[in-house]
Amino acid sequence: MSAQNLTCPASIQTDPYPTRLHQHPDQPWYKRQEHTVKGRHLPGPLSQSQLDNFEQNGFLFERGFLHSDEVNALSNAMSELLNRNDYRNRSFTITEPDSQEIRSVFAVHFLHRAFQRLARDPRLTDRVKQILGGEHYIHQSRINYKPGFKGKGFNWHSDFETWHAEDGMPAMHAVSASIILTDNHTFNGPLMLIPRSHQHFIPCIGETPDEHHKQSLKKQQIGVPPEDALSAMINRNGIEAPTGPAGSLLLFDCNTLHGSNANMAPDPRSNVFFVFNRQDNACQAPYAAKKPRPSFLCHTPNQLWQPNDH
Amino acid sequence: MSAQNLTCPASIQTDPYPTRLHQHPDQPWYKRQEHTVKGRHLPGPLSQSQLDNFEQNGFLFERGFLHSDEVNALSNAMSELLNRNDYRNRSFTITEPDSQEIRSVFAVHFLHRAFQRLARDPRLTDRVKQILGGEHYIHQSRINYKPGFKGKGFNWHSDFETWHAEDGMPAMHAVSASIILTDNHTFNGPLMLIPRSHQHFIPCIGETPDEHHKQSLKKQQIGVPPEDALSAMINRNGIEAPTGPAGSLLLFDCNTLHGSNANMAPDPRSNVFFVFNRQDNACQAPYAAKKPRPSFLCHTPNQLWQPNDH
Repeated sequence: MSAQNLTCPASIQTDPYPTRLHQHPDQPWYKRQEHTVKGRHLPGPLSQSQLDNFEQNGFLFERGFLHSDEVNALSNAMSELLNRNDYRNRSFTITEPDSQEIRSVFAVHFLHRAFQRLARDPRLTDRVKQILGGEHYIHQSRINYKPGFKGKGFNWHSDFETWHAEDGMPAMHAVSASIILTDNHTFNGPLMLIPRSHQHFIPCIGETPDEHHKQSLKKQQIGVPPEDALSAMINRNGIEAPTGPAGSLLLFDCNTLHGSNANMAPDPRSNVFFVFNRQDNACQAPYAAKKPRPSFLCHTPNQLWQPNDH
Repeated sequence: MSAQNLTCPASIQTDPYPTRLHQHPDQPWYKRQEHTVKGRHLPGPLSQSQLDNFEQNGFLFERGFLHSDEVNALSNAMSELLNRNDYRNRSFTITEPDSQEIRSVFAVHFLHRAFQRLARDPRLTDRVKQILGGEHYIHQSRINYKPGFKGKGFNWHSDFETWHAEDGMPAMHAVSASIILTDNHTFNGPLMLIPRSHQHFIPCIGETPDEHHKQSLKKQQIGVPPEDALSAMINRNGIEAPTGPAGSLLLFDCNTLHGSNANMAPDPRSNVFFVFNRQDNACQAPYAAKKPRPSFLCHTPNQLWQPNDH
C-alpha cells in the first residue's frame, strides 16, 4: 500500500502506521513501507543467507555468539545492577506485576561498563550495520530477569508499535539484539516470535493513557494487537521460540511480533537487550501519546544518560 | 521410610502424608507408601511395558485413543455445557481469575450423557483397573477449557495433596485420565508433568483457608509445594509436556506433580478429565481442612449428583 493511495483513510496519508485507535480500522493490518535489510553491501559477519533469513522471517538466532567467560562476566554485571540498593524503586527499575522481584533494569549501557562495551562490540555493531544500512545509536537498553517459577510472561506485541506511538520513532529502521545470559529452554519462558509478522503493521485499539509506561512495562494491555488480527497472523505464520545455550544472540526486527510465557522452571531466564536505531530515524514527538516517555526508555543520539535524569 | 520409624515426627506416625503445615518439615519430601501399579495380573489393553512406563514415570501418554468422530461428539457435548446459561455462575462452573471466561465445569459425567458414557467406556475403565488393581468409582470429573490467548496457567501441584488435605482421600490409589479434545502443542498451554515425582510426597506449607476451593480452582496458592523442594525435584527429574492430536489420552498418577502455562496461541486447549479412585480408598474426613469440599468436587461411591446438590 502506498501512503499516497487515495483509497486510504485520511490518517494513513500522513502516518503509514496509525495506532491507538478509537475503533477497529477497515483492515486488520497495513503493509510495511521500509525494507527490512538495508546494508547488504556493507562488510560484516552475517552471510547473505543469514541476511535473507532475517529479511524473510524478521529474526535471526545465532548460538554461541559469546564465549562462556564473557557470559559469566555479563552475568556478574547483571547481578551487580540487580543488587544495588540505590537502584531499587527507581523509575528505570521495573518489578514483577505481583511482587517486588526486579524484572527489568533499563539504560544498562549507561549504568555498567560491561554493557557499554558490549553495546559497542564490533561483533554486534557490524551485524547491526548490515541490517540497518547506516549509522546507528542506542534507542533503549535493558536487562530482563525472569526468576525461576515467579517470572511472568508478556503479551504479544510489536515493539515498533510502542516506539512509534509513545516515543515518536518515525519508521522501521531499528533492530533489537537480545543476548541470553542463561540457557533458554522450553520451560523457562523463552521469547516467542511470529515469523514474517514484521512485514505488516497491526494497528492497536485504545487511546494511550497518561504515564502508560508505568503499567505497560509490568503488563502491557494497551498497544497489544486485536485478537482477530493476531489470530490471523499466527494461523498464517505460526509461532517459533528459539532455544539455546547462554551466550546465544537473537536479532529481531523492531516490528516482529513477540511475547513470552511464564517461567515454570527453577532456573531464571535472563538476557541483555539493546535496541539499535538508525541515526536518521531518531525519535520525534510521539505519534499517539500526549507526552514523550522518560529518557531511560528512549535515548537520543549522542545522549549521556545518568540515573538522576528524568 | 516406614510409618512406624521412630525417627519420624509424631504427625508422620499417624499420617504418612502430612501437609498444610505451619513450618517447613525436616525433610523436603516423604517416600510414597503405596505401589503405583496394582493390577498387573488383570487383563486389559495396557502392555506390561506401558505399565512399567506408568510405574516409573507416573504418567503414560497414548496418541489416538479416541477416533476423530468421537472427539467431535465430545467437543459438541462440551460446547453444550459451556453454553448453558443456567450453568453460569453456579458453584460447579469456574471462570478465569481475571475474566468471566469459563475455565472448568465439574461433575460432567452427571451433567451430560456423552461424558457419562466415556467414564464407563471399557477402553478407559480396563486401563484404570490395570493400574488400581480393584474396583473404582469417579472421585471427580470436569472439562477444562483454556481459551486462545486468554487461558491462564496453573502452578505446579500434586492433586493427591489437595484430595488428601481437603477431601480426606486416605492413600494413593487414584489415577487421572485426561483426554484432549483439541490438538495439544507447545504454545497452547499443554499440561506439564515432572516425571517420577509421584514417588515422593512433598508437604505444603500454610493452613487451608475456609472455602479454599473458591480461590484455588482459579489460581492455587495454598497446596503448592515449597520452591526449594520443587526445584530439587525438577533438577532431578526434568519436565515433560506431552503434545499430540485431539483424542490422545494422558493417564497420570494422583501424586504426579503437574502444572501448565498460559495459552499463547489462538486455538483453545480443552480436555475432559476423570479421576478414578479405588473403592476401598473412599474419602473420609479431610486431613488438613476444617470442612469437606462440596460434592461437585468430591463424589462418593454410588453417589447420584445433581446440579442442585451442594
